[in-house]
Amino acid sequence: MTASTIPHLVDHASVIVHGPDQPGIVGQVAALVARNGGNIISLDQYSSNESGGDFFQRIVMHRDNLAGALPDIEDDLARTLEPMGLSWRLRDMSQPLRMAVLASKSDHCLLDLLWRHRRGELPVSIPMTISNHTDVAEDVRSFGIPFIHVPSQVGPDKSKSEAEILALLKGNVDFVVLARYMQVISSDFLEKLGVPVINIHHSFLPAFIGAAPYRKAKERGVKLIGATAHYVTEDLDEGPIIEQDVVRVTHADTATTLQRRGADVERAVLSRAVTWHAEDRVIRHGNHTIVFN
Amino acid sequence: MTASTIPHLVDHASVIVHGPDQPGIVGQVAALVARNGGNIISLDQYSSNESGGDFFQRIVMHRDNLAGALPDIEDDLARTLEPMGLSWRLRDMSQPLRMAVLASKSDHCLLDLLWRHRRGELPVSIPMTISNHTDVAEDVRSFGIPFIHVPSQVGPDKSKSEAEILALLKGNVDFVVLARYMQVISSDFLEKLGVPVINIHHSFLPAFIGAAPYRKAKERGVKLIGATAHYVTEDLDEGPIIEQDVVRVTHADTATTLQRRGADVERAVLSRAVTWHAEDRVIRHGNHTIVFN
Amino acid sequence: MTASTIPHLVDHASVIVHGPDQPGIVGQVAALVARNGGNIISLDQYSSNESGGDFFQRIVMHRDNLAGALPDIEDDLARTLEPMGLSWRLRDMSQPLRMAVLASKSDHCLLDLLWRHRRGELPVSIPMTISNHTDVAEDVRSFGIPFIHVPSQVGPDKSKSEAEILALLKGNVDFVVLARYMQVISSDFLEKLGVPVINIHHSFLPAFIGAAPYRKAKERGVKLIGATAHYVTEDLDEGPIIEQDVVRVTHADTATTLQRRGADVERAVLSRAVTWHAEDRVIRHGNHTIVFN
Amino acid sequence: MTASTIPHLVDHASVIVHGPDQPGIVGQVAALVARNGGNIISLDQYSSNESGGDFFQRIVMHRDNLAGALPDIEDDLARTLEPMGLSWRLRDMSQPLRMAVLASKSDHCLLDLLWRHRRGELPVSIPMTISNHTDVAEDVRSFGIPFIHVPSQVGPDKSKSEAEILALLKGNVDFVVLARYMQVISSDFLEKLGVPVINIHHSFLPAFIGAAPYRKAKERGVKLIGATAHYVTEDLDEGPIIEQDVVRVTHADTATTLQRRGADVERAVLSRAVTWHAEDRVIRHGNHTIVFN
Repeated sequence: MTASTIPHLVDHASVIVHGPDQPGIVGQVAALVARNGGNIISLDQYSSNESGGDFFQRIVMHRDNLAGALPDIEDDLARTLEPMGLSWRLRDMSQPLRMAVLASKSDHCLLDLLWRHRRGELPVSIPMTISNHTDVAEDVRSFGIPFIHVPSQVGPDKSKSEAEILALLKGNVDFVVLARYMQVISSDFLEKLGVPVINIHHSFLPAFIGAAPYRKAKERGVKLIGATAHYVTEDLDEGPIIEQDVVRVTHADTATTLQRRGADVERAVLSRAVTWHAEDRVIRHGNHTIVFN
Repeated sequence: MTASTIPHLVDHASVIVHGPDQPGIVGQVAALVARNGGNIISLDQYSSNESGGDFFQRIVMHRDNLAGALPDIEDDLARTLEPMGLSWRLRDMSQPLRMAVLASKSDHCLLDLLWRHRRGELPVSIPMTISNHTDVAEDVRSFGIPFIHVPSQVGPDKSKSEAEILALLKGNVDFVVLARYMQVISSDFLEKLGVPVINIHHSFLPAFIGAAPYRKAKERGVKLIGATAHYVTEDLDEGPIIEQDVVRVTHADTATTLQRRGADVERAVLSRAVTWHAEDRVIRHGNHTIVFN
Repeated sequence: MTASTIPHLVDHASVIVHGPDQPGIVGQVAALVARNGGNIISLDQYSSNESGGDFFQRIVMHRDNLAGALPDIEDDLARTLEPMGLSWRLRDMSQPLRMAVLASKSDHCLLDLLWRHRRGELPVSIPMTISNHTDVAEDVRSFGIPFIHVPSQVGPDKSKSEAEILALLKGNVDFVVLARYMQVISSDFLEKLGVPVINIHHSFLPAFIGAAPYRKAKERGVKLIGATAHYVTEDLDEGPIIEQDVVRVTHADTATTLQRRGADVERAVLSRAVTWHAEDRVIRHGNHTIVFN
Repeated sequence: MTASTIPHLVDHASVIVHGPDQPGIVGQVAALVARNGGNIISLDQYSSNESGGDFFQRIVMHRDNLAGALPDIEDDLARTLEPMGLSWRLRDMSQPLRMAVLASKSDHCLLDLLWRHRRGELPVSIPMTISNHTDVAEDVRSFGIPFIHVPSQVGPDKSKSEAEILALLKGNVDFVVLARYMQVISSDFLEKLGVPVINIHHSFLPAFIGAAPYRKAKERGVKLIGATAHYVTEDLDEGPIIEQDVVRVTHADTATTLQRRGADVERAVLSRAVTWHAEDRVIRHGNHTIVFN
């Protein structure tokens, strides 16, 4: 039990199974858990279609002395599920995922994550926060979290600063959160990083493309403004959606108050998305997600 | 296949299992479905506690020629689950539940149910609507639903009118919806009726006890008004909650507009509660519900 | 007092004033109301900017024997406000606006409007409902509202059917509601019609352009679906927004249940937008609205 | 211009008028503003009833060199409005209200206020935070806000610790916020304090009286939990409501997650209530509020 172990999740594992739906999956997985000495604590599943669809399942299982048994369970999962064409993930939930946060000048999303982490609401460790500015350095360090300043590169070529960030993250984190990080991320960076990246951005009904979306939203007189948390893919802001929410606004809102309300909904949506990801509740599939929350 | 069969649910059964949680339930139920030729379409479950809690499960299974196999499946469920102390329900989902609606003068909840039923959104049949007034008679009949007028009895003793309603309902319906039915229901009536009764009433944060709740809510300046759908128990308005929702109001709302907004949220909440009940998504347990929606 | 007079609004007028903001408008309007024997019942106003912005005001005034005094008040408004560059509208609120509803096959928005009208919640008269199909004819007539069938024209040229509709509407209605009317409306039609047209359409965060939006929304895994009510302009679906709302959905929603939930939010949003328009609570300005609700 | 002046509100005053409704108030107030060299920036008003009701108005006016003109404007308000039986308040909005925060061990409401204050979203100064515990001392001081520890008194008699708090607050603050302050406040304290006190508490539909409300809410299976911000009166938790909101929960929420979600809605509701109070948007009247937001 290392320092960062989550006490109430000792001996708990999450099992994610997905692939082509077929009769008997539930029984196979239940039998597997049983013969490995485990007990199913919770189970969620979803089939995209009654026949010929995709099957998604999240199990939380308990097993005494889980850590020692993990290799055997992994072998059994591979032997049992792979011949059925199913993919799987097994994770010891007492070991928190390592999360890096990338930020710029805005603090609302960043501080909400750090504060929830300190309260014990986020089952993650935060080995580092990186920013292209120093505005949030003192705040981050007051939470006892390392802050690293990587200035953004002047000009369109960001390869040097991306390489610097990559050197910091690579192998050290299990996922990355862009907490209002205002730099475009290259697909090359994403590919080399090799772990999920979660982003938050404002959303409107309808959407407003391009710069100054709050101004455009005001000009059209929108009555709701929202935020979307999603996995980052090559198509920035087009990746699988994890969570969304909105807040009501009126004609009397100014650009300033629209942005404040936007900030409130952004931090709420991002916190939920990060929590669900950290609890293995989100399964990516194509360009959408299954969220067992 | 009778006239009222729901085509897309032919050969689908719901299986509800609940009782003391214990290792192996999932596997036992999965094996049972498999050995009876069925396939699990969807599965939801919930355990109230990791150890020593209560277990709740809803399965939708598909089996060719389900109707003929039902007795065998029932036998198997009894043999398998009852020794484990688990109770169960099995239902052919293609046979819609028979729902009676009791109303008074208000039409908003009643018409919303009838309209959804006509659109095919409510998987029920509606053999009758009963009211202690005749205001809604013509509307109900325009939907092709029988309307029966049972005047409420003068004075505190309602036994005669309750007996009349009971004679109409007994054996003819699977559940009853009180769609703003403004008569107190005796516990004797409930007991003799023997099927679930769903009620809708307004709700506030905080609650306002007694008469004229909208006036009291206005005097206190509430900013939200809500509605609660629940199963009726002996303690009127205190039974297990199925669904709730609220709508935002302001100081500028009058008693009239508060009631209109209240009516909108009442009909929405009741429609959801009735739909979930009719789809076997609600499990009562003690004074609360598990809702797999 | 004609048959359709709204009793509790007799002797009530709405006054809408808007134009370039300048010191003293409030005082001028208040003095005008006073010297015409009126009393201000409610007042809402909004300035888009502290200096050099636009000014918007809605007053409800009461005056005994309003009908006879209207010409004098109109003269006074013109004399007082026009030299200040302000435009104005005055309306006897006891005379309900005449609203036509255009529909196709869907009944959810249409029936919600007719039902609210019958309950006395919508301060309008409904001289006619027009549809390019006959599906809703019986329902409409059961509310005592005339139903007129104008089949849509085959081919891209809709001029003949538009002319037929125009002949029905022209001079007979004060505004038109498109309650899921699935025909494109030409800008020529809009111009000849000369009264406001309110439309309702589904909305998503982000938007999905083109056909089959619900399918695309599902593929992207949206967590909220919404609806927008707006005034129709030449740019279909791009006009000034009156009201919006959303409802939460999950990965488990199917195309069918997404559309049902969409229908629920559509009818709620359209009803609110129509009510506010009929109560003179909406002021159009550029491509947005001021809504005093 | 003192250090704490809010730059963009220099030369802005709020004027609150309320009392018995009568013809001509709007005109009188508009004329008063004009003859004192001011310009109405925004105006909200509400009448509780068309005839014989109460009138409430909030004006924001701009006047060059406001500070020097305040005494004259006050004289004029007194001369003009008091004979009409109207009461009034005038305030230079560039001078932030002085707000004390009382807290216990919970940090969620407290930190949200301090963080918004630092971002410039709360137009207040915070001369001190007081707590009966020391848990939040370091956090508060990291925002540059004084923290004072006043241990709660053992036993039912709280007069000594209340006197100590009173000595700190009296004359130094314009209002007090109880940010999850878990001590009962005596009516004697309230009376001697003489400034408004805002409290936040959890709310449910229906209400659950007494201890352990989250447990009771879970036993009843509530689907929404909420929070209410209100002014404190002698009847604790029964004072005029300023703002309320709710969040959706399910049967799967545990006591822990219910409390987390409750904390999220509490901090959001309290922040809105405090902002509106600090912007003079809330008028208390009897046991309710008029909120011009």
